[in-house]
Amino acid sequence: MKIDAVDFFYLSMPVVTDEGDGSQDALLVRVAAAGRVGWGECEASPLVSIAAFVCPMSHGACRPVADSVLGQSFASPADIARIAALVGQRSMDLLQAPHTWSGIEIALWDLLGKVRGEPVWKLLGYQRAHRKLPYASQLFGDTPQETLLRARRARADRFVAVKFGWGPIGTADLRADVDQFTAAREGLGPDGILLVDVGQIFGDNVEAAAARLPALERAGARWLEEPFQTAALGAYSALAARSSKLKLAGGEGAHNAHMAEHLIDYGRVGYIQIDCGRIGGIGAAKRVADYAVQRGVQFVNHTFTSQLALSASLQPYAGLQSHEICEYPYAPKPLAREVTHGLERDADGLISLPDSPGLGVSVDTAAARKFLVDVEIKVGGRSLFRSSDQF
Amino acid sequence: MKIDAVDFFYLSMPVVTDEGDGSQDALLVRVAAAGRVGWGECEASPLVSIAAFVCPMSHGACRPVADSVLGQSFASPADIARIAALVGQRSMDLLQAPHTWSGIEIALWDLLGKVRGEPVWKLLGYQRAHRKLPYASQLFGDTPQETLLRARRARADRFVAVKFGWGPIGTADLRADVDQFTAAREGLGPDGILLVDVGQIFGDNVEAAAARLPALERAGARWLEEPFQTAALGAYSALAARSSKLKLAGGEGAHNAHMAEHLIDYGRVGYIQIDCGRIGGIGAAKRVADYAVQRGVQFVNHTFTSQLALSASLQPYAGLQSHEICEYPYAPKPLAREVTHGLERDADGLISLPDSPGLGVSVDTAAARKFLVDVEIKVGGRSLFRSSDQF
Repeated sequence: MKIDAVDFFYLSMPVVTDEGDGSQDALLVRVAAAGRVGWGECEASPLVSIAAFVCPMSHGACRPVADSVLGQSFASPADIARIAALVGQRSMDLLQAPHTWSGIEIALWDLLGKVRGEPVWKLLGYQRAHRKLPYASQLFGDTPQETLLRARRARADRFVAVKFGWGPIGTADLRADVDQFTAAREGLGPDGILLVDVGQIFGDNVEAAAARLPALERAGARWLEEPFQTAALGAYSALAARSSKLKLAGGEGAHNAHMAEHLIDYGRVGYIQIDCGRIGGIGAAKRVADYAVQRGVQFVNHTFTSQLALSASLQPYAGLQSHEICEYPYAPKPLAREVTHGLERDADGLISLPDSPGLGVSVDTAAARKFLVDVEIKVGGRSLFRSSDQF
Repeated sequence: MKIDAVDFFYLSMPVVTDEGDGSQDALLVRVAAAGRVGWGECEASPLVSIAAFVCPMSHGACRPVADSVLGQSFASPADIARIAALVGQRSMDLLQAPHTWSGIEIALWDLLGKVRGEPVWKLLGYQRAHRKLPYASQLFGDTPQETLLRARRARADRFVAVKFGWGPIGTADLRADVDQFTAAREGLGPDGILLVDVGQIFGDNVEAAAARLPALERAGARWLEEPFQTAALGAYSALAARSSKLKLAGGEGAHNAHMAEHLIDYGRVGYIQIDCGRIGGIGAAKRVADYAVQRGVQFVNHTFTSQLALSASLQPYAGLQSHEICEYPYAPKPLAREVTHGLERDADGLISLPDSPGLGVSVDTAAARKFLVDVEIKVGGRSLFRSSDQF
């Protein structure tokens, strides 16, 4: 079949705030081929990702993503990999390209699965999709008391594992952070799994991050996520050498498989966290999952948006039984809750990927229409992009 | 002073082809503060880079670059670094942000130099700007004969060093490439400095690149540039271990200083090539230059566009006398030739950075107007960007 059309739908909450909540907008991608459609999602700035699809060519290695996608024939996972390589080569100097391509790539897998009547994880070579233990992923409260209450609420809501992220950590003094970690553990109880995400707040300052290690270990945190910028491999490995029980986690910023592999090899993370909506899609993420197995590192999805993104990000490690934990957006905005459905926790509180073809997630186009943002891009008097409400 | 305005001017040749010639369009940036202006240039897709400046916020770590720049006060190099860190933090998840920021950062240095009455290299701490030996940077011919003629022409035009890049290399068989390398040497004569750039054509295929090593060493090439994708550090180091006289070069794709440092430490390149219009500007490039000195690696600019970009990219290593070679766009398109002026070769065929304040390069706004591309970006019925011809 031939890729006939790629359509982008920019959705947004009416008001977007500066909190670290990635579910406030979304860029859905629909790919059409042979009379059928597949859906994907870029975990990226919608406007900029659309611009990278339609922009005028700057030169042979800075072409719009559209040039490598539209009209391509595809019938197998190998074709998706071939198109990925084409995008990499022709859009080498277009920095945003991997974010744009990620959503398209996901939609291609969804479409291929639907055509073949198989779930994506089967197309990836897995015999079955093992259930995952979801951790409730949420932000730290503004105060330790608020964090404590959030931890209790998640436990009451049957979450065994909880991750707190961002918020005030690293913005005041050490003592304030210690109080937050302590409150999180108190709220979770002694048997809860505590994960901590500090959102790159320490840049590449190893000492600032290391000062938090004793309190994190006392609180029994299983991992410390993103103490540094994704590229600060030296800082990661220096901190890894100074922590004993606590492992480092990171990787959501990786926009190609190499970057994730470097975090494993040079940064010495114990958990590699991959967002399919950024790394170049499901194929690139599967490569990282294979590598993680080889290196004895745990693969974890990164997802803070919709259930479509969640399904895509779980596929690459669906068959890895011992890589059992998964991120689960605990309190996403209505946009993310209403537009896609399909992945609820089962009676045991676990997440199963659907057996249905493709990603197994339906897009509620009537709901999506409510959040649709109108976009128009004109260059040289020519309209390069005009948003459509034709779902 | 306070940053009052940042204006983008998208310039383009009337026709842009898919050859690997980066001088076919340009994104000029003008920053205004305290009644003065500075000029910079992004080496990036103009439309996508503009979109990254004006896009709506997606969440606290995916904000438009404008949010971290407009209204900021600045009076010193430390302030430029502070704003750079702010962009890094607030636009962490906006992949295109470093390309947009690079042009702004360059303009801030230009402006600061003008205000202080000093060239940028002096603001960077150098006592003098040493002359550089420019290499004529051009593409391989479609045939070995054409490459030979191009080599002769460059020598006749007083270039001692010549780089050939891209074109047909890696697209046919080994023999075709060997013929190209041989022709380049023949055209240059035995005493010319030959540099070869293969534009990432081998992806991460070490064997394919290694097969070219004997011919490159026979032709006496000084470096092999970009055999692989910027992030393929393992492939770089594997190839470095297999070459004796020939050194590897790379780094133009680095969009932060860490990436360049990794190419040095893990990729084992002998030449680190930095484009100020991509890596985050002059400050990030200077950090890499310092690192290169520490590690015994040669720093080289990457420039394939205007003289404004050339001046910016030479500043970070202006004071490093033993890092003497520099890239010089040999046959840029009229756009790049006409819009900026200031850096011609002297009687010895060498390039000197100007002593005049800032970057020492003037922008010919009348010429720029001829190449101006009209852009309009509307989101949610609101015009976020409308190009202006008010230079």
